[in-house]
Amino acid sequence: MPDLWQEAMDHAVAVARKSGEIVRGALQNERKVMCKSTSVDLVTKTDQKVEQLIISSVREKFPTHSFIGEESVAEGQPCVLSDNPTWIIDPVDGTTNFVHGYPFVAVCIGFAVEKTLEFGVVYSCIEDKMYTARRGKGAFCNGQPLQVSHQKDINQSLIATEFGSNRDPEVVDKIFSNMRKILCLPVHGMRGAGSAALNMCLVASGCVEAYYEIGIHCWDVAAAAVVVQEAGGVLMDLEGGPMDLMSRRIVAANSQTIAEKIIKEVEAFPADRDDAPLENKQ
Amino acid sequence: MPDLWQEAMDHAVAVARKSGEIVRGALQNERKVMCKSTSVDLVTKTDQKVEQLIISSVREKFPTHSFIGEESVAEGQPCVLSDNPTWIIDPVDGTTNFVHGYPFVAVCIGFAVEKTLEFGVVYSCIEDKMYTARRGKGAFCNGQPLQVSHQKDINQSLIATEFGSNRDPEVVDKIFSNMRKILCLPVHGMRGAGSAALNMCLVASGCVEAYYEIGIHCWDVAAAAVVVQEAGGVLMDLEGGPMDLMSRRIVAANSQTIAEKIIKEVEAFPADRDDAPLENKQ
Repeated sequence: MPDLWQEAMDHAVAVARKSGEIVRGALQNERKVMCKSTSVDLVTKTDQKVEQLIISSVREKFPTHSFIGEESVAEGQPCVLSDNPTWIIDPVDGTTNFVHGYPFVAVCIGFAVEKTLEFGVVYSCIEDKMYTARRGKGAFCNGQPLQVSHQKDINQSLIATEFGSNRDPEVVDKIFSNMRKILCLPVHGMRGAGSAALNMCLVASGCVEAYYEIGIHCWDVAAAAVVVQEAGGVLMDLEGGPMDLMSRRIVAANSQTIAEKIIKEVEAFPADRDDAPLENKQ
Repeated sequence: MPDLWQEAMDHAVAVARKSGEIVRGALQNERKVMCKSTSVDLVTKTDQKVEQLIISSVREKFPTHSFIGEESVAEGQPCVLSDNPTWIIDPVDGTTNFVHGYPFVAVCIGFAVEKTLEFGVVYSCIEDKMYTARRGKGAFCNGQPLQVSHQKDINQSLIATEFGSNRDPEVVDKIFSNMRKILCLPVHGMRGAGSAALNMCLVASGCVEAYYEIGIHCWDVAAAAVVVQEAGGVLMDLEGGPMDLMSRRIVAANSQTIAEKIIKEVEAFPADRDDAPLENKQ
């Protein structure tokens, strides 16, 4: 039903833009008065408000569809991708950036049918950049087509990754050791926008050759995955093979060559799958 | 002669904007056709073109003034700050970003009289953000006043630094060891825009609480130093004491408290002073 999915995508773009306004409003009006204890509250409040807006507006139009949303999962909803049309939502990707007003904060809406991602919408709301991609139809930023970088030499590449939020010494050791291996390949440099989705959109835009991370969730990457793929990029699991939306690991690159170079260097570390039964999660 | 310096500052803003157009033009028209061997050429060509534009236009208006410019120093001009009115110029700050089209690239123009910085202009040309600050008159971005963050607790802070371009294993060791110490204080997160000047403008904007780096040059930080100071921030040498423009080390922070916490953690490593006699440089 291609027309139905186009209608769904149009809805996603509209509601992402509206969500972005809420996020910007929260930043402008409320962040200034935040103190230590209220910053977490503002994040949670904005996250919940935006996710509810998206889910309720979609439910009205598409009452049979399913949802996986960061806030819903936090509240105990299951995180399982069925064959049913499913909206995968991160209301505010780049939470730390949001708290600090660092200019990379995104509303992410991915959409999968029979476990295949059909479209992705990533709205970088401080920059006012709307990234959109539909399977087989190309990727765009504010309507301009996107194309990954043609660079195939990793030594001439810029690589994106993140320090992450885990401060467990063993995890930090692995993250630093991986970063060091990549940096000293050598590469031109390393960057981290502080948002998984926007790191991936930077891959799609040709600004960085690849992005990798362990510990991300399906809602951080589902929408941007379509953007990368439709801009000519590749998605893989950091342990090799195709991207597994629930594995918490990802490489998004401009090419198979660069993706495999990264997989070869980076040592993965365990992270509970997003779709693990709740009672098995640590 | 306050009016004369205002005239100088107005000129700096105008020529920074014009320079930014050249940088954007180079990115849009020429970067797409670059291969490995031509990317360095494009950087050098754009750097030289912009620096020449700035110097020649300033010479016409202020024939007695002196210059310290990245390209001029690379060509063997001295890098010494005298009492004479001196324009300190980085035509393209964020060279690696420029090569990759990563959206943080800045034209930097600082101005010092009797070794005191009088104004700074930093034009983030892909974002189209014009940062301006004059001593005693406040700091602005596109005309809007800037204010550093009020956060005094480093554990609630976002800190900016860079991996740098040096791949000497001992230097890389120190950079990673410093990053790890800061990350595990813990802090909320670490970011690096890939431009010293824009990291400092992000401090001035209140998005990050502090930025530190070893290996920067006077032209990377002179203009942005005024922006930080006029936004209420502090500038220090990474080994303690006031900022030394020629020492290749800097901490720019929202407060003395945060700056000192960083100085306490970070181990400096030697870098030739910018004003060291040429024959002494390694």
